[in-house]
Amino acid sequence: MKKIVLIRHGQSVWNLENRFTGWTDVDLSENGYQEAKKAGEILKKHDYNFDIAFTSLLKRAIKTLHIILEDLDHLWIPEYKSWHLNERFYGALQGLNKAETAEKYGADQVYKWRRDPDEEPPQIGRDDERFPGNDLRYQLLKPEELPLTENLSDTIARVLPYWNESIVPAISRNEKVIISAHGNSLRALIKYIDNLSNEEVTALEIPTGVPLVYELDDNLQKIRHYYLE
Amino acid sequence: MKKIVLIRHGQSVWNLENRFTGWTDVDLSENGYQEAKKAGEILKKHDYNFDIAFTSLLKRAIKTLHIILEDLDHLWIPEYKSWHLNERFYGALQGLNKAETAEKYGADQVYKWRRDPDEEPPQIGRDDERFPGNDLRYQLLKPEELPLTENLSDTIARVLPYWNESIVPAISRNEKVIISAHGNSLRALIKYIDNLSNEEVTALEIPTGVPLVYELDDNLQKIRHYYLE
Repeated sequence: MKKIVLIRHGQSVWNLENRFTGWTDVDLSENGYQEAKKAGEILKKHDYNFDIAFTSLLKRAIKTLHIILEDLDHLWIPEYKSWHLNERFYGALQGLNKAETAEKYGADQVYKWRRDPDEEPPQIGRDDERFPGNDLRYQLLKPEELPLTENLSDTIARVLPYWNESIVPAISRNEKVIISAHGNSLRALIKYIDNLSNEEVTALEIPTGVPLVYELDDNLQKIRHYYLE
Repeated sequence: MKKIVLIRHGQSVWNLENRFTGWTDVDLSENGYQEAKKAGEILKKHDYNFDIAFTSLLKRAIKTLHIILEDLDHLWIPEYKSWHLNERFYGALQGLNKAETAEKYGADQVYKWRRDPDEEPPQIGRDDERFPGNDLRYQLLKPEELPLTENLSDTIARVLPYWNESIVPAISRNEKVIISAHGNSLRALIKYIDNLSNEEVTALEIPTGVPLVYELDDNLQKIRHYYLE
């Protein structure tokens, strides 16, 4: 039996301000630091440790990981960062206040943008400062990999290759894996691992800073999953 | 012209207590955190940023790196950790107070142990709790790679393969490199890069937390070096 731990980063400054974040690289809030710290303590209490860590290119996930690894005294394990694990790219919604957006477009539409796997937010233009092609950290991406917007299906489409090519091999080597990522990149992954329907993934909300354990069999089929407390 | 930045981790708790540290995984002191923070600010002031980072398996170097990368808003760059960049393994001296050791063995002997590239401290046994073979993070090392003691020449012998196989290729790809490491693993590296004699390396003292820039030509021969302030 193989076990992986998924962790959604602690609260960010924009979670707190109720703004769409996406690939915007906002920091953890003070509460987010505390959530990450708590996650580390919970993992420690349950005697978890890890051989390898995966995270996104966004500091709220990277810092959550570092805080946890420091708590576990495992800062020394290899850590791989990839844009494939980034939050869903929220297009032209990035930076907007969710409540104001709901007033403008209606709560139903905002709910769909947030949760419906097929619904994509309005695109940004390539000259928009939010376009990832203007950010140094994405300079090695191919033009077709740089998003203008993403629905959850798009996110799944770029999370899965990384899962298959980088994370699965580590699990297969029997390494203990932790993945520190984002609400929607984790939903994308879980939809796949857990074979969820669109309806099920629409209803899925992953709490910030709570370690989520997936137990998998040798074919990486789910045995069970649970949150650690 | 290629530029690399070397940084000796900030003061550790055992630097402060004047104890031989070696591979013991002690944390930064409060002053050490401040030194790392200062190093980040200095690099920022001079508009430095990096494409790739290398560090040891010891938290005082890893945390120094993280503090610097956070200051530079570059936490997202790839980071490689290796035992090859660890501090010199101090054998049976690890954990001993330097002043007490000087009283027992004489200041001359302690100076030799600390600085003479050919002088090695007393060995530890394989049943010693300080033996790296008893530490999970070194489990993949070959038996002959696990030190019982090291003189600076031994440290050089294991720093250089990593320099040649992992760091030089990054420099050759024109990536901007930062190496966060230790007094003696950096002395080992500098002895090689700078072609220092034993006498010169004996006299070389690298301050903690001060970014040290090496400018190299295309054949990785030194053009000049300087500390940033």
